[in-house]
Amino acid sequence: MPVDERTLISRYFTGRQGSRPDVLLGIGDDAAVLRCEPGWDLVVATDSIAEGTHFPAGIPAHAIGHRCLAVNLSDLAAMAAEPLWCSLALSLPKAEPLWVEEFAAGLFALADRSGTALIGGDTVRGPLAATITVQGRVRPGAAVTRAGARIGDGIWVTGHPGDAVAGRLLLDGASQLAATVRDALCQRFLYPEPRLHEGLALGALATAMLDVSDGLHDDIGKLMMASGRGAELDAGLLPVSAELRAAAAGRAIEYALTGGDDYELCFTVPEQATARLQAMAADWPVAITRIGTVVSEPGVRWQYQGRALQVPDSTFRHF
Amino acid sequence: MPVDERTLISRYFTGRQGSRPDVLLGIGDDAAVLRCEPGWDLVVATDSIAEGTHFPAGIPAHAIGHRCLAVNLSDLAAMAAEPLWCSLALSLPKAEPLWVEEFAAGLFALADRSGTALIGGDTVRGPLAATITVQGRVRPGAAVTRAGARIGDGIWVTGHPGDAVAGRLLLDGASQLAATVRDALCQRFLYPEPRLHEGLALGALATAMLDVSDGLHDDIGKLMMASGRGAELDAGLLPVSAELRAAAAGRAIEYALTGGDDYELCFTVPEQATARLQAMAADWPVAITRIGTVVSEPGVRWQYQGRALQVPDSTFRHF
Repeated sequence: MPVDERTLISRYFTGRQGSRPDVLLGIGDDAAVLRCEPGWDLVVATDSIAEGTHFPAGIPAHAIGHRCLAVNLSDLAAMAAEPLWCSLALSLPKAEPLWVEEFAAGLFALADRSGTALIGGDTVRGPLAATITVQGRVRPGAAVTRAGARIGDGIWVTGHPGDAVAGRLLLDGASQLAATVRDALCQRFLYPEPRLHEGLALGALATAMLDVSDGLHDDIGKLMMASGRGAELDAGLLPVSAELRAAAAGRAIEYALTGGDDYELCFTVPEQATARLQAMAADWPVAITRIGTVVSEPGVRWQYQGRALQVPDSTFRHF
Repeated sequence: MPVDERTLISRYFTGRQGSRPDVLLGIGDDAAVLRCEPGWDLVVATDSIAEGTHFPAGIPAHAIGHRCLAVNLSDLAAMAAEPLWCSLALSLPKAEPLWVEEFAAGLFALADRSGTALIGGDTVRGPLAATITVQGRVRPGAAVTRAGARIGDGIWVTGHPGDAVAGRLLLDGASQLAATVRDALCQRFLYPEPRLHEGLALGALATAMLDVSDGLHDDIGKLMMASGRGAELDAGLLPVSAELRAAAAGRAIEYALTGGDDYELCFTVPEQATARLQAMAADWPVAITRIGTVVSEPGVRWQYQGRALQVPDSTFRHF
């Protein structure tokens, strides 16, 4: 059944802008018109995901719809921003209504619970890929950039880096793991959870922050580079999950350091704010773990069981 | 020479955000931070262009860089909005420095003269395609939507619809046209000029407006549908250029009505504002032409030399 772009869009995407009063004109005209409340700055991020690069062929459309928004919301979380609106550019090999319906369901499930309104977009024919530009807001001066880490700050990470890449590898092939372990890891890859609530709260304490997408080691390097500092870290402190240990055995730490696709927050907090951080995080649904300390000497140095650890180049690079 | 994404981006795209004081944090962090001036609403559009669909393979990278921004600025023009910022998602088959340099030159030439700051983006490996999300601003209530056309309003168009599709067809093959004619038409396809100045000025007079991307006939249909009105038009009034007559001969009117890729503005203006419109447009670099009138009966009806004209389905559809 051939369905043209306009029909597809109107069927699954229009009229879904939710009830945000700041969307003055939503999908359907040449552009959307939005109201910026006074006293806020705008925060804007753009991320693309493409089949074969950012996710393997054959994963559910629902997970792809979730993913393209989640990776963008994760950028807002890393700025301590609150989401407002997003635009979607979707490249589809064919206009397949059932696929688009499932994709839209995954996208809107996350959009609705994060309060993000879809305000526009475009569809073209091509290999499966999705680009979202997301817009959020912060109070003036409240955005947490990568550039504020100070000597002596603790280096922290949310969740369990490495789970996602293990899940992705499991999606690709057979495995002798228990179904519960396998499912948990696959879920961590398929449904990355943007740490919006946590990022917003960290705005009050973190001196620098980013989200972990390219691998923890690489991303800490970016944080330190932007801050003009270095990091000393202990791989023995890494919050390696029981599932990752089961799946990756002796390579669990390598997965955690270089896997990527975690979409966890990595951030720095002054030593004296540690107790406040732990109190704040006590009721979060995700654990936080201190894995190192900011130092003056540039570079990212890991040790493990008292010895220097050489971290391999990121194994799973996107471009 | 293999060049990775990060190197490419930093070489050609960072540090190019220009001097807009409302860009508080530009390219290089998880997201950009932007200042919305009080007393303005935000206008946001997203358009993608893909090789083989929106432009043929082999056209200059400079023209592709121009095009991906131009088609988005054209959407802002059609809202009577003023551009502020844009984000770019670029899909590239390979990271080829010379190509990227030329692409960036085309993009920034238009960005700089339109006052649009590039504030972020993403690059992925894939077939050549570019998505831009552009943000502009209007005074509250000043956006011109598609929905305001009133009975008796004149229907107007800027420039010379049909030139662009003729240019595109000429790019594809040999031609016996004079080089000057051929070059002029190819230029019209390769370098669509967003009618920003004209769109902004039309904010004071137009009751409804859009930019012509899918073909004049189709797009007038959208304008009338959104306005709940109909259109009666005279194809004999179409501003067919001498170049298009030379290139398309007996099909010039068909090209003008169904070609698309024009990125001209089509708008409606009350009869009694005609003189003001003409005075305003007298010093524009682009002509404006009245081609019809808004009526109550839905539908878009053309006549030509006193007879009803049947318009064929758009010949050049993108999805």
